[in-house]
Amino acid sequence: MGNSDYVYPSAATEGGGGECLHRAAIPPPQPFVKSLKNSLKETFFPDDPLRQFKNQPAARKVLLGLQYFFPVLEWGPRYRLALLKSDLISGITIASLAIPQGISYAKLANLPPILGLYSSFIPPLIYAMMGSSKDLAVGTVAVASLLISAMLGAEVSPAQNPTLYLHLAFTATFFAGVFQASLGLLRLGFIVDFLSHATIVGFMAGAATVVCLQQLKGILGLTHFTHATDLVSVLRSVFSQVDQWRWESGVLGCCFLFFLLVTRYFSKKKPKFFWISAMAPLTSVILGSLLVFLTHAEKHGVEVIGELKKGLNPVSITDLVMVSPHLSIAIKTGIITGVIALAEGIAVGRSFAMFKHYNIDGNKEMVAIGTMNMVGSCFSCYLTTGPFSRSAVNFNAGCKTAVSNVVMAIAVMLTLLFLTPLFHYTPLVVLSSIIISAMLGLIDYDAAIHLWKVDKFDFLVCIGAYAGVVFASVEIGLVIAVAISLLRLLLFVARPRTLVLGNLPNSTVYRNVEQYPNAGNVPGILILEIDAPIYFANSSYLRERIIRWVDEEEDRIKASGDSTLQYVVLDMSAVGNIDTSGISMFEEIKKILDRRGLKIVLANPGAEVMKKLDKGKFIESLGHEWIYLTVAEAVAACNYMLHSCKPNPETDEKTEAWNSV
Amino acid sequence: MGNSDYVYPSAATEGGGGECLHRAAIPPPQPFVKSLKNSLKETFFPDDPLRQFKNQPAARKVLLGLQYFFPVLEWGPRYRLALLKSDLISGITIASLAIPQGISYAKLANLPPILGLYSSFIPPLIYAMMGSSKDLAVGTVAVASLLISAMLGAEVSPAQNPTLYLHLAFTATFFAGVFQASLGLLRLGFIVDFLSHATIVGFMAGAATVVCLQQLKGILGLTHFTHATDLVSVLRSVFSQVDQWRWESGVLGCCFLFFLLVTRYFSKKKPKFFWISAMAPLTSVILGSLLVFLTHAEKHGVEVIGELKKGLNPVSITDLVMVSPHLSIAIKTGIITGVIALAEGIAVGRSFAMFKHYNIDGNKEMVAIGTMNMVGSCFSCYLTTGPFSRSAVNFNAGCKTAVSNVVMAIAVMLTLLFLTPLFHYTPLVVLSSIIISAMLGLIDYDAAIHLWKVDKFDFLVCIGAYAGVVFASVEIGLVIAVAISLLRLLLFVARPRTLVLGNLPNSTVYRNVEQYPNAGNVPGILILEIDAPIYFANSSYLRERIIRWVDEEEDRIKASGDSTLQYVVLDMSAVGNIDTSGISMFEEIKKILDRRGLKIVLANPGAEVMKKLDKGKFIESLGHEWIYLTVAEAVAACNYMLHSCKPNPETDEKTEAWNSV
Repeated sequence: MGNSDYVYPSAATEGGGGECLHRAAIPPPQPFVKSLKNSLKETFFPDDPLRQFKNQPAARKVLLGLQYFFPVLEWGPRYRLALLKSDLISGITIASLAIPQGISYAKLANLPPILGLYSSFIPPLIYAMMGSSKDLAVGTVAVASLLISAMLGAEVSPAQNPTLYLHLAFTATFFAGVFQASLGLLRLGFIVDFLSHATIVGFMAGAATVVCLQQLKGILGLTHFTHATDLVSVLRSVFSQVDQWRWESGVLGCCFLFFLLVTRYFSKKKPKFFWISAMAPLTSVILGSLLVFLTHAEKHGVEVIGELKKGLNPVSITDLVMVSPHLSIAIKTGIITGVIALAEGIAVGRSFAMFKHYNIDGNKEMVAIGTMNMVGSCFSCYLTTGPFSRSAVNFNAGCKTAVSNVVMAIAVMLTLLFLTPLFHYTPLVVLSSIIISAMLGLIDYDAAIHLWKVDKFDFLVCIGAYAGVVFASVEIGLVIAVAISLLRLLLFVARPRTLVLGNLPNSTVYRNVEQYPNAGNVPGILILEIDAPIYFANSSYLRERIIRWVDEEEDRIKASGDSTLQYVVLDMSAVGNIDTSGISMFEEIKKILDRRGLKIVLANPGAEVMKKLDKGKFIESLGHEWIYLTVAEAVAACNYMLHSCKPNPETDEKTEAWNSV
Repeated sequence: MGNSDYVYPSAATEGGGGECLHRAAIPPPQPFVKSLKNSLKETFFPDDPLRQFKNQPAARKVLLGLQYFFPVLEWGPRYRLALLKSDLISGITIASLAIPQGISYAKLANLPPILGLYSSFIPPLIYAMMGSSKDLAVGTVAVASLLISAMLGAEVSPAQNPTLYLHLAFTATFFAGVFQASLGLLRLGFIVDFLSHATIVGFMAGAATVVCLQQLKGILGLTHFTHATDLVSVLRSVFSQVDQWRWESGVLGCCFLFFLLVTRYFSKKKPKFFWISAMAPLTSVILGSLLVFLTHAEKHGVEVIGELKKGLNPVSITDLVMVSPHLSIAIKTGIITGVIALAEGIAVGRSFAMFKHYNIDGNKEMVAIGTMNMVGSCFSCYLTTGPFSRSAVNFNAGCKTAVSNVVMAIAVMLTLLFLTPLFHYTPLVVLSSIIISAMLGLIDYDAAIHLWKVDKFDFLVCIGAYAGVVFASVEIGLVIAVAISLLRLLLFVARPRTLVLGNLPNSTVYRNVEQYPNAGNVPGILILEIDAPIYFANSSYLRERIIRWVDEEEDRIKASGDSTLQYVVLDMSAVGNIDTSGISMFEEIKKILDRRGLKIVLANPGAEVMKKLDKGKFIESLGHEWIYLTVAEAVAACNYMLHSCKPNPETDEKTEAWNSV
């Protein structure tokens, strides 16, 4: 058996490569504990975050550890006043966006409007210390707000039992934070990766549609409105009370919406004037409030916010509901909204880091976002993350570090301390316009069209998420999208492609005959490539499919009168792994082919596969000499057998001949 | 760009192959409908069952269609009397096993014992017409019986409300049949493949343990017993009433169990005497009944079956419960037991078909098993499938066709008509011994040890299923096993391996340096192989991992003083598919590497990947000339660039130089 360096007699003439015959190697056995450790490391620490801790003194290790969780310790000492100017401008800009958006989204979540302001004060401060993104602007988001109102509202009515509802919202936020931080600490950040880009495009567009539909209540000045979020219920609710529509409210809303959309369009055309669209919401709020104040429109069907309590965030840690029949819904809401908020925050952080060429550690970000929600929930804040719109404004305004978040927090603090009375007359319809204009930007037709062009399955995922959110509910849409995405992965594994390979003219290269029509088949030899790991989920399929390829090849040979089929070469290059079902499958195929007088030959099995085949005794039963390093060598060996000795594969003559070489 | 046949200047010297430079081909665009049709066909009709219908006259097509669903029409006309002798012997043998087993399992399911006999009469007749296995012997199975009693018993007490319980059992059987047949008709048979071999080994062993534990009630002659199936509850229940144990019952049970085990051991050693173990249960029943009849032990704590109704199956179609608060539990029970029964039936059918060299169509078998359960549920039968033990006896007894099932059915029919009074004095403890001895055969230590040796993950699946069944419940065990199996698939996709390739000495072959320690690296070029399809679930990971490889390589170069890294070659042979997230990943990696002055080169992307990369405009942005057919050609091209012109990858000089060749 020691012929690993033996020059194969016919390889030089057949393959033209004059190559040595290499034996497909079985990797040396590793102790179980070591291989387990390796694979755990690859699974949970692919970025090797402990690399910088190696060979450092203990004091330095402590500092590095603190810096890992509090990046401010790293960049803080290097912060210069020159950066402050940029951060000041961007911080004030995002504050002017944060105040009206915060109030609007809190209304969307059926929470007291002041909570929107509270949530823009504490969480940004925490994030500034713990976050590693320089561009993320912290705040509440529309989709999570809608989800909170939909999920909690289904169990506790915010109108009839506002205190319990409020406390459940804090509890959900707390659990969202716990869940987010644990994902990061347990290095399970990859769970967020299962929300694919296509899922997020469809989901966001669907959520934006639903949020816009909800605003019809505000725009039309309706007092009764359905609690459901799906298109059919909302439209039925709106059109069943046409006589309740208030034109004053509608006209005001459309005017402000038009103003917001025009400024957004303008800023999009001329990015230098980003501040026009950033300031537009605050301008609308001021104009709307003035208008109502002057015309006393609140007495003519235009609803206003009413009184906002002055003062900073009250402590709410005692409000967390830890024993209650409603605890489970709070946990469920927390987990779902937590994942969605996390996906948005991480994606936004990554996109801007890509622009500015720095790196974001997903797991570290999760800990930061999780902590900010846990702390926030103890100080009357509800779920926050890094919303795309606010972060984009922050980026455009030229922020340099997370100090812009601190500036925003201070601006919001000043508002809370001194300016809340000014919002008394702010009409709700203006808030609705602000939400609609923000939401329209989330519907990304172009991305959907791109998905359709490039990958139909991704498009299906996207449309599934959209339709699920719009016609059923936000959670169902999410479940549909994740299910379709997972189904795709499972289908890929359950139905791997098997390809017939042919020889490219004048080379030793064997490639798929469909992709390379000039690849020619080798008489008497069928070469198949298996394009996926061989697992329980596909071993039955592969057995049937390979046998069908052999059947079809034999039919073809019968029809064309070529020389009979003698060898089936399986190219295993793309088989990343195999399990016990896969090994049984090979044994079965070998039996079936043996009976039909065909010999099975393997080419280029990887390390993992060789190890398993060896342990499963398949190599022993096949014969190590029937496993080659490349398809070319396997074909050369088969050709040698075909032409030098009368093949009689039912006995083991050939194998013996080979062994005696 | 038309240099696809251009001989690369340095390839002859570098690679030694003198090969032509082939352009990695983008497959010609296919109309969407056609490619959808193709992939649907591959997914649902991998065995191409309609092939034989092609180019046939209409009458023949009808006949073939009928033969597809009723294989009896195919083999029936060819049936000869010579076969009947074998079928008669095997049929009578399995009947002698079916009668005591049927009664025992019906007791296990908390159903009237006579149902076990009914279920061995109608379903085998249906299967004989529709099934394609020659060796499957139809009957009830212990695991499904246990599941029925556990799941239905949790909702309706069989002691307090026996009629409703019975009707729900029929209903569950009906839905199991509907589900099984629909899986077959919808070509979804691959769902059964998701129960891997490892899952089934663990699950069966767990179920066998649980069933044996349940028999302690019969063996010890206890009257009160827990309804739970888990180890802890059962042992607590048994040992909390030590004073209730009946020694008469215990002694009798142990004697019969010993007798059964000895005969089984003997038959296993000498397969010719298979009939000894096959007849042992019936012998035990006869001996036990005689003993009780003679000693009147039923008055001394040995429970007996009591009266069995004479006569054939009563019609039960009107007993199906279609509107009831319990309908949902019936459907749930039906689906779960249906899947488990199907998995056992299909696996058994396939194993014996493999022995005798004929083929079983999984989807067709599902329709047959489903129909036999649907019809059975209308005639007082409960869930049946092809149990392993009975089929093995059938096979050993030399059955030739499904006629042996007909013979068994006739023997059971005669029993039902004339012999039921004989079972009046059969002691329950004998039935318990029969069940225990059958169950001990299902605990397959060897298979578990084999799994541990070959594949640790499969072993984990197996142990998970076992522990789940034994310590929690049958359903939980199943869910655990399927979840671990799926997790493995997802982990494979989420954490694909990336391998560094090196050049094998004196060849143009590039292989994993870990598997082939003599493979040498090429100065200035890092060659990576990606070992899985690139999907949303792994694109973030791959981006980080590839960058980390580059970092590590640069660190190594810095330490060793080799020539600087210039090219990163990605071997895409094993990348079966890519989605839009994957394409974005490539764009990001290209940006990152561009910034660091490194050039990314692709080798051997498959048809599907080339198509997607082309549609996603990545080929355009990378340049088609940076995609090679083999790693050798990519390395040769990089080497040519490295040695002929001063590399300056930040501008596109090289690309232009290349294009102008």
